[in-house]
Amino acid sequence: MGTRRTVVIERIAPQLDGGRFPIKRVVGDELQVTADIFADGHDLLDASLLLRVEGASAWEEAPMRPVDNDRWSGRLALRRNARHRYAVEAWRDRFGSLHAALAKKVEAGVPYATELAEGRELLEAALGRASSAPGRTAAADATLLAGALAGLRRSRSEAGRAAILLAEPLLEAARRHPDRSAATRSDELPLMVDRERARFGAWYELFPRSQSRDPRKPRATTLDEATWRLPEIARLGFDVVYMPPIHPIGHTNRKGRNNSLDAKRGDVGSPYAIGSADGGHDAVARELGGLDAFLRFREEVERHGMEVALDIAIQASPDHPWVKEHPEWFRHAPDGTIKYAENPPKKYQDIYPIEFGNDDPEARAALWRAWRDVFMTWVERGVKVFRVDNPHTKPIPFWEWLISEVQRDHPDVVFLSEAFTRPKMMQRLAKVGFTQSYTYFTWRETRDELRDYFTELTLSEMREYFRGNLFTNTPDINPHHTDHGRPAFVIRSVLAATLSSSYGVYSGWELCEYARLDDREEYLDSEKYEVRARDWDAPGNIKDLLGDLNRLRREWRALQHYDNLRFEAVTAGRTLFYRKALPHGDPDPLTGFPHRWREPVYVAVNCDPVTPERAFLHPDLPAVGIGWDEPYQVIDLVSGERRTERGADIAVDLDPAGTPFTIFTIGPLDR
Amino acid sequence: MGTRRTVVIERIAPQLDGGRFPIKRVVGDELQVTADIFADGHDLLDASLLLRVEGASAWEEAPMRPVDNDRWSGRLALRRNARHRYAVEAWRDRFGSLHAALAKKVEAGVPYATELAEGRELLEAALGRASSAPGRTAAADATLLAGALAGLRRSRSEAGRAAILLAEPLLEAARRHPDRSAATRSDELPLMVDRERARFGAWYELFPRSQSRDPRKPRATTLDEATWRLPEIARLGFDVVYMPPIHPIGHTNRKGRNNSLDAKRGDVGSPYAIGSADGGHDAVARELGGLDAFLRFREEVERHGMEVALDIAIQASPDHPWVKEHPEWFRHAPDGTIKYAENPPKKYQDIYPIEFGNDDPEARAALWRAWRDVFMTWVERGVKVFRVDNPHTKPIPFWEWLISEVQRDHPDVVFLSEAFTRPKMMQRLAKVGFTQSYTYFTWRETRDELRDYFTELTLSEMREYFRGNLFTNTPDINPHHTDHGRPAFVIRSVLAATLSSSYGVYSGWELCEYARLDDREEYLDSEKYEVRARDWDAPGNIKDLLGDLNRLRREWRALQHYDNLRFEAVTAGRTLFYRKALPHGDPDPLTGFPHRWREPVYVAVNCDPVTPERAFLHPDLPAVGIGWDEPYQVIDLVSGERRTERGADIAVDLDPAGTPFTIFTIGPLDR
Repeated sequence: MGTRRTVVIERIAPQLDGGRFPIKRVVGDELQVTADIFADGHDLLDASLLLRVEGASAWEEAPMRPVDNDRWSGRLALRRNARHRYAVEAWRDRFGSLHAALAKKVEAGVPYATELAEGRELLEAALGRASSAPGRTAAADATLLAGALAGLRRSRSEAGRAAILLAEPLLEAARRHPDRSAATRSDELPLMVDRERARFGAWYELFPRSQSRDPRKPRATTLDEATWRLPEIARLGFDVVYMPPIHPIGHTNRKGRNNSLDAKRGDVGSPYAIGSADGGHDAVARELGGLDAFLRFREEVERHGMEVALDIAIQASPDHPWVKEHPEWFRHAPDGTIKYAENPPKKYQDIYPIEFGNDDPEARAALWRAWRDVFMTWVERGVKVFRVDNPHTKPIPFWEWLISEVQRDHPDVVFLSEAFTRPKMMQRLAKVGFTQSYTYFTWRETRDELRDYFTELTLSEMREYFRGNLFTNTPDINPHHTDHGRPAFVIRSVLAATLSSSYGVYSGWELCEYARLDDREEYLDSEKYEVRARDWDAPGNIKDLLGDLNRLRREWRALQHYDNLRFEAVTAGRTLFYRKALPHGDPDPLTGFPHRWREPVYVAVNCDPVTPERAFLHPDLPAVGIGWDEPYQVIDLVSGERRTERGADIAVDLDPAGTPFTIFTIGPLDR
Repeated sequence: MGTRRTVVIERIAPQLDGGRFPIKRVVGDELQVTADIFADGHDLLDASLLLRVEGASAWEEAPMRPVDNDRWSGRLALRRNARHRYAVEAWRDRFGSLHAALAKKVEAGVPYATELAEGRELLEAALGRASSAPGRTAAADATLLAGALAGLRRSRSEAGRAAILLAEPLLEAARRHPDRSAATRSDELPLMVDRERARFGAWYELFPRSQSRDPRKPRATTLDEATWRLPEIARLGFDVVYMPPIHPIGHTNRKGRNNSLDAKRGDVGSPYAIGSADGGHDAVARELGGLDAFLRFREEVERHGMEVALDIAIQASPDHPWVKEHPEWFRHAPDGTIKYAENPPKKYQDIYPIEFGNDDPEARAALWRAWRDVFMTWVERGVKVFRVDNPHTKPIPFWEWLISEVQRDHPDVVFLSEAFTRPKMMQRLAKVGFTQSYTYFTWRETRDELRDYFTELTLSEMREYFRGNLFTNTPDINPHHTDHGRPAFVIRSVLAATLSSSYGVYSGWELCEYARLDDREEYLDSEKYEVRARDWDAPGNIKDLLGDLNRLRREWRALQHYDNLRFEAVTAGRTLFYRKALPHGDPDPLTGFPHRWREPVYVAVNCDPVTPERAFLHPDLPAVGIGWDEPYQVIDLVSGERRTERGADIAVDLDPAGTPFTIFTIGPLDR
């Protein structure tokens, strides 16, 4: 009761669920914030956007300006990889209000002695604040304010004093030193500023044990032996080398080839059956060379300008040390046994799930700490990128806590969520902290499905927190469209590499491997259960294409952004046509969306791997600064060919048997 | 750390700003709530909608059901005029999950001994809860559960035990007694359930001092003398008799006729210049007969089936007792004087504004209490409807506190916000508690303006908290369209009475009065500054029309709802065509919007008071249960005429010089 007269600040955008979850940006981005700001009565208002690193005491500040019907907007640059907080502060602009009222009265020719007296009081207060503020602008303001006050004392007429008070530079100086003691400050809203790899990266997934040099002689390789592959992976332009779990593999109920229950002598087992007498999640399998081999491998990856991603799967083989040391972390059936993992009727006889539902809060807390320590152990060993297996079967608050614990001292750690589940759970995991997420890309095949799905990902609220990493395939997913062979691999590679700033392939993809187990979405002779060897130069491979795509991704900054995807008009039934470009000039102060774009990359892909199509592309030319009737230059970004076009009607022939895509930029003619 | 595995409940709808403000309903409505509900892992879930009066301990409860992709929905009837809270609770359906897993295993022909043991444990626990639960259903469930457990003990085969566990009635009984000890409960969300008058009412505004019987002899009337008008107002079907302030009027700077600064002897002054030696906001002017006359007037209004609305204006004449008693509630200029109210260049020399910004928190708190006491005094005198003058120039937290204080013991009190200001402030006042709001209706004149504005009011989020009360005119607003005379009065009356469930006219409207001061939006010889007298039976009056409209509003319940307005297709340039109808059958569980409607009232109005128009109306026939090709009956609700139509193409001629509107219902042919 009896609150002071306050300014209302509401509908701050962006924000997620009333500030419950952080929005995401990367270093180098700008944060644009809008808010409704208004107050009772007729005073003018003023407002600032505030920003600070979480835990810091000082705020960075930028002015906000009204843009539409009580909606205000402001922007600040993001420079540090850290969790941040932002807020909006607003206050009554008392001198500005007095200034406006005085101007009206002078105009209307009515008495204004009270305004003159009030104006002088406000100026004196502003001078006090300017004098004690640091910086050159403040000093200049203090001089100006003091001069105006002296003028008011000297002036012999009311009209003269009004003229002094109404001077525009005085208004600006006074507004720079407002009385903010009764300002309204909004709740602080969270913001995660990641490093760039959180948004941009090409991932290459491989099983280190399957990297023997001679394709005719498959044999289990160590991490040291696998390093011979790194120069080529780097040459193809990949950024992240990602490996399935590298820990000791259990023996009990070890799976044989093609997921069979009767492992033969020499079968290597699934790397997801984690843990043996040799150790658990903090150990490296002896057959891979142990921890030292891993550390050497990591260094070699970094020497090639890439980084390592590890796969953390929260589960255990029956031989994992924790099964004996911590029976309370497993779920025991009424008969005392531990049930293996299953998703009926699928069975994982070689894996025990972890039980997060223990009734004892101490046991639960110890379990959470143990897993945090697993991640921290690998962070201390130099791993900064984690792919997390099946996070949706573990408690969501656990992830929120764990990621925040790790990122507190290591904000550069990236977490990729492998949650192939229902949309709302995938979204929630992204909201509670996962840096990137797997997507439904793999199952979106037609032009319209792709357009609808990526419109949702990049234009809905999801763009604030959900960064899709598009995998063409994974050891678990051999999509049915690969049955069409090379054309499908080309189409899906182009889509993955250009629709999102993050994408990945699982090795074998570049060789257009698609041998299928029965008619299921699984690979025949899957590396999950056996050692494989490949001829990395087999004919028909698409390594040149992947190299081209990764080169373009590095050369064209537009491909490194995520929510700049815009679908363009096309006359055709199968062809997807889109643009990625960089914002040009100031964004719309209201929506934050750019008005104009520069350095555009256009991609047209025939999504059908069988039927050729002639498509007519209709790019929005004015959006990139070209008039509808102006001639312009089209440069094919793969071949380098240039030609001149005029008008937004470009015919292209996209033939799956030949080249089912085109990637180009457009710009003014050379002078 | 170490939280239990929880169910996520998010995106509960409806809600305002994360539960910061209450949504609004009236007694007799149903509350439909939807929410996203999901959890880690593969368990089945279950959920309830909870509701209780604020401060009550027990919750009323209704089951929620999944309707789409992790979205759940539930409904409860609202029976009490009170502030409520609602919430969603969700939990893992352990027996249901076990039931589903067992069914899959039986189907797949794999062992299920563990599931049998677990099922028995869960049944025993459910039996314990059912046995201690009250009610006949619980007793029957306990019998069923006990029988199943006995059967499990007796059965000699696993298949037999599985069959017992898989029985559908057992599943239902067990699910009625879940273990909710680890359930997730959402935050509680606020809900105001008003009495029906909050949504539905026809208001008639009059100055009691201007009600002399002889139009040729204007003289100031008392409240007792004004009662002769009540039978007619009641006969015309109005529900609320609303009076501008009735308090003692100040003498200092009293305004003369037509807002002149030089009041003549005998000038009565503006009732908004409140307070004199006779008293302030809790007193009734002596010239109106004082408090006793008011109480008699109120009783007489009620005897005619209507109720009184008072106007509270938070401001004071320089003669108000508080000016001396509480100088700290007024703002003093540097020279010690109190500035009169102004909104430059508009001036109110007879009025002091109240200062809510005193630096002393105790003074501010005392001021808030004083105004609360003003409202409470009138509530205790039987006034349950207040029109609040200019609330947007007082602090918003003040209104939130005051309305909540008054409604705590008097939930039946209705507050109408007279905030003719910018949209966001009007919305905020509605959010913090105002029951109804004035709108921009008065200035929306063309068909398209009206359609756009009322779409926003009744279909956007505003429908949850903002109830527009459409005034055709007020003592301050003589809209420019009245210059067109009677046709404009007819058109605007029909629109006001049918677009919203609440509307009002200021007396003189029924006589098509439109004499204008200069070319401003003000009345000539305004009652605000002088006593008027009228011939209430003057030729050309539209009393019959108002009577018809109010009769239809009482007969047709569809006109008593607010957010059931739906614009219908029309081929014409000036004609607005819309339907108000009652929801029929269950609403869409996802959106809460009805699928089908009944008892429709259709209104077509030519919004142009000058040009006749032939319009072709295209009602959505299937929405009211009539096939596109079926013959149906059209009943004119004013004349009672019936005719048969077929197809959604009804021609009407709407002539401002004759009848510029039509109001009808449609239904199946009589059999």
